[in-house]
Amino acid sequence: MNLKRAALERHYKLKGKIEVVSRAKIESVEDLAVLYTPGVAQPCLEIQKDIRKSFDFTRRNNLVAVITDGTAVLGLGDIGPEAGMPVMEGKCLLFKELGNVDAFPLCIQSRDPETIVETIVQIAGSFGGINLEDISAPRCFEIEEKLKKRLNIPVFHDDQHGTAVVVLAGIINALKLTGKEKHACRVVINGAGSAGIATAKLLHGFGFENIIVCDIRGIIARDDKSLNQAQMEIAGITNHRLRHGSLADALDGADIFVGVSAPGVVTADMIRRMNQGAIVFAMANPVPEIMPDLAKAAGAAVVGTGRSDFPNQINNVLAFPGIFRGALDVGAGEINEEMKLAAALAIADTVSKEELTADHIVPELLDPRVLKNVSKAVREAAIKTGAAGVRKEV
Amino acid sequence: MNLKRAALERHYKLKGKIEVVSRAKIESVEDLAVLYTPGVAQPCLEIQKDIRKSFDFTRRNNLVAVITDGTAVLGLGDIGPEAGMPVMEGKCLLFKELGNVDAFPLCIQSRDPETIVETIVQIAGSFGGINLEDISAPRCFEIEEKLKKRLNIPVFHDDQHGTAVVVLAGIINALKLTGKEKHACRVVINGAGSAGIATAKLLHGFGFENIIVCDIRGIIARDDKSLNQAQMEIAGITNHRLRHGSLADALDGADIFVGVSAPGVVTADMIRRMNQGAIVFAMANPVPEIMPDLAKAAGAAVVGTGRSDFPNQINNVLAFPGIFRGALDVGAGEINEEMKLAAALAIADTVSKEELTADHIVPELLDPRVLKNVSKAVREAAIKTGAAGVRKEV
Repeated sequence: MNLKRAALERHYKLKGKIEVVSRAKIESVEDLAVLYTPGVAQPCLEIQKDIRKSFDFTRRNNLVAVITDGTAVLGLGDIGPEAGMPVMEGKCLLFKELGNVDAFPLCIQSRDPETIVETIVQIAGSFGGINLEDISAPRCFEIEEKLKKRLNIPVFHDDQHGTAVVVLAGIINALKLTGKEKHACRVVINGAGSAGIATAKLLHGFGFENIIVCDIRGIIARDDKSLNQAQMEIAGITNHRLRHGSLADALDGADIFVGVSAPGVVTADMIRRMNQGAIVFAMANPVPEIMPDLAKAAGAAVVGTGRSDFPNQINNVLAFPGIFRGALDVGAGEINEEMKLAAALAIADTVSKEELTADHIVPELLDPRVLKNVSKAVREAAIKTGAAGVRKEV
Repeated sequence: MNLKRAALERHYKLKGKIEVVSRAKIESVEDLAVLYTPGVAQPCLEIQKDIRKSFDFTRRNNLVAVITDGTAVLGLGDIGPEAGMPVMEGKCLLFKELGNVDAFPLCIQSRDPETIVETIVQIAGSFGGINLEDISAPRCFEIEEKLKKRLNIPVFHDDQHGTAVVVLAGIINALKLTGKEKHACRVVINGAGSAGIATAKLLHGFGFENIIVCDIRGIIARDDKSLNQAQMEIAGITNHRLRHGSLADALDGADIFVGVSAPGVVTADMIRRMNQGAIVFAMANPVPEIMPDLAKAAGAAVVGTGRSDFPNQINNVLAFPGIFRGALDVGAGEINEEMKLAAALAIADTVSKEELTADHIVPELLDPRVLKNVSKAVREAAIKTGAAGVRKEV
C-alpha cells in the first residue's frame, strides 16, 4: 500500500519528527557569560530559594513529557518501548504544531507499574506536565492515579481522557440534532479498556444517568466477582438495574452506542433495535464496530468513527493540545473533571448552529478555532475550580 | 554586579534556553496520515523487529540527555535538582550551537546512586547518549561505572572527562613550548574530586608516569587506609614512590600543576620551588588557586585558568560538543579512553605552530575549527577501537 511506503520513507528521511533547538544564540564570549557560566548561577540561586521559580527561569513552563512503556501502541499492542517512540514523537509534533506546547518523548523499559511511577516521579521536576500514552489497561489506571497523588503538575493519560472528551463533545452535538435529553438516554459503551472506562466516567460526570459498559464477555455488573479494580469502580456508577447479558441485549432500546472495541462486533440488526434517532460512535481502528453506511441504513441518525475518510472523525487530536495549552497557561497543578467537561463543551460549541449537521458534529481536526476555544475553556475552568496556579505552591 | 542582573533578566525573558520543535509541518489530513496514524505504524513495526532501527526512524540518532541530580552545580554545590536546570539547559544550548547535537535537560530527585542509575536505565531507550553533569563525587564515579555496564550508548560524565580532555590538550601544547618531555615530568594535581581523578587517569593513559594527586589533607598515597574507592584506584596509578606531605611538598621540584580545587591555595613561593619552565593550570572558579600574574612573576612559563578574562581558558566547552558529535556520527556504543585522547590531541593540534604562544595554548572557545577537528578525531578513534557501530548491536 502506498501510504505505508510513504510513511516509512518520510520517517527515514526525517530522522526524527522532533528536534531540540536553542532559544538563544552563542555568538560571543559575552553570550557565554550571560547564558552559561558564570551568569547562569543567578537563575540557579533564585530557584534554589523557591522551586516554583523553575517555571520562570527554565523551559518547564511550556514543557510536557509524552511517556509510554510501549504496551498498547495504536492498534499494534505490546510492541516494546523503543518501537512505540515514532508514535510518541508524532504526539509531540502535534502538541507543538497544534498547541504550541513543547513536548518531549520518553519510553520506559519496565512494565511494572511501580517502577514506571517511580521513574516518572524521579524526572518530573524537569517538566510542567506529564502526558501518559499507549500504556495498557488496567495498569494505566494505577499508574495515573499514583502519579496524580505524588506530583503537583498535570498528569493526563490521553488514551483515557482525550478520547472521553472528544466522545462527549460529539454526543453533546448529536443530542442537539436528535432532540434527545441526556437524562432520558441509555448509553452503551463497548470496550472496558482505558478509553471505555474513562468515557463512562466522564459521561456520568456530565449527567448521563443510564450507562451500560460491556466488555468482550458482555454487560459489566457490580455483582460480578471477577472484575478488576477499575471495572469495579465503573460498575459502581453504571448499570444501576443490574442488567446482565450480551452487547446485543444492552443495545436493545439504547439511544447511544460508543464503541472502543473491535472490528465488526455490531450488526445492523443491533442498530435496528436501538431507539429512534440512534447515535452510533464506532471507533475501532482501522475497521469500525460497524461501517457507517450499514449503521445509517439500519436507522442510525448520527454516525461517527475514528477514521478520517468518513464524516465525524472522533479523534483526541481535538482535545489534548488545547487541554495542555490551557493548563500550562494558568499554571494548573492538575487536569480535573471540570476542565475536561469544559474542553468537551468547547469542542462541541466550536461547531456553529449553521455548521451542525449529522455529518458534521465535531470540528475538522486542523480547525484553528479548536485550540483557541478549548484552551480558553480549560483556563477558565482551572481558575474556577482552584486548579490554576497550584503547581506554583510546591 | 551588572552581569548578574543581565543574566537574570535574560533568563526570565527567554523562559527557557531550549525548545522542542517539529521537524515536519502538519498542514493537511494527509500529513497526519503519514506522520501520525495510521502511517506511523510502519516505523513502529520496523523497530519492533529490530530495536537498532530506532536510530533510523526516531530522533535518537542525534539526541543526548543532559542529566543532573543537582548535587554539585557549578561552584554552587548541592542546590537541588530543579535549581540545577538552568545549567543543564545552558549545556544543551552549547551542545546544539557548537555541536549540532540535540540535547535535552533532565533532573533527578533522588540522591541515591542506585535510584539515579535505575532511573536513567529506564529512560535510556529514548536517547543516543547520556551526558552526566554536576553530580557530586564520589557518587558520580559509581553512577557512571554502573551505567556504562548496563547501557550500550555512550555515557560521559563531563565534569570528569571533559575537563580531563581539555587539561591534557593544554598540557600537550605547553610541553611543546617549554620543551619538556612527558616521561620526565612530575605532574601535581590538586583536588581529588571528579575532575582531578579523571585528569590523573587520562594523563596516566597519555603516558605521564610521575603524577601526584593531593586533596585537602595533602598528598594521596595508597598506604592511607581512609581513601574511598575512587581515590584508592587513583592512588594505584600515582605517587609510586609513596611520598607523603603537603601540596607544597608535592610541588617542590614539580613541572606541572593542575588545580581543580579552591581559591588561593597556591602561593608564589610554591611556584618558585617548581622546576624551571613550570606549567600552571589554576582552574578554581571564579578565583584561581593562584592569580596568573603572580604565578608568572614567580617563574611559571605557561599559566591557564578557567576564566575567560585571562589567557588560556581551560574550559570543557572545547571538548564535549565534538566528542558527542563524533560518537553519534559513527553510532558509537561508548566513549572510550582512546576517543578522549584523540579529542585532546585534536584540540591541541587546532592551535597551529604559528599561533602557539605561552598565552595561546588552547583554541578560543568558539573557534569553529574545534568541532571539526575533535569530531573527526573521535570518529576515527571510535572506528579504530571497535567502538563505532556498537550501539547498533542491541
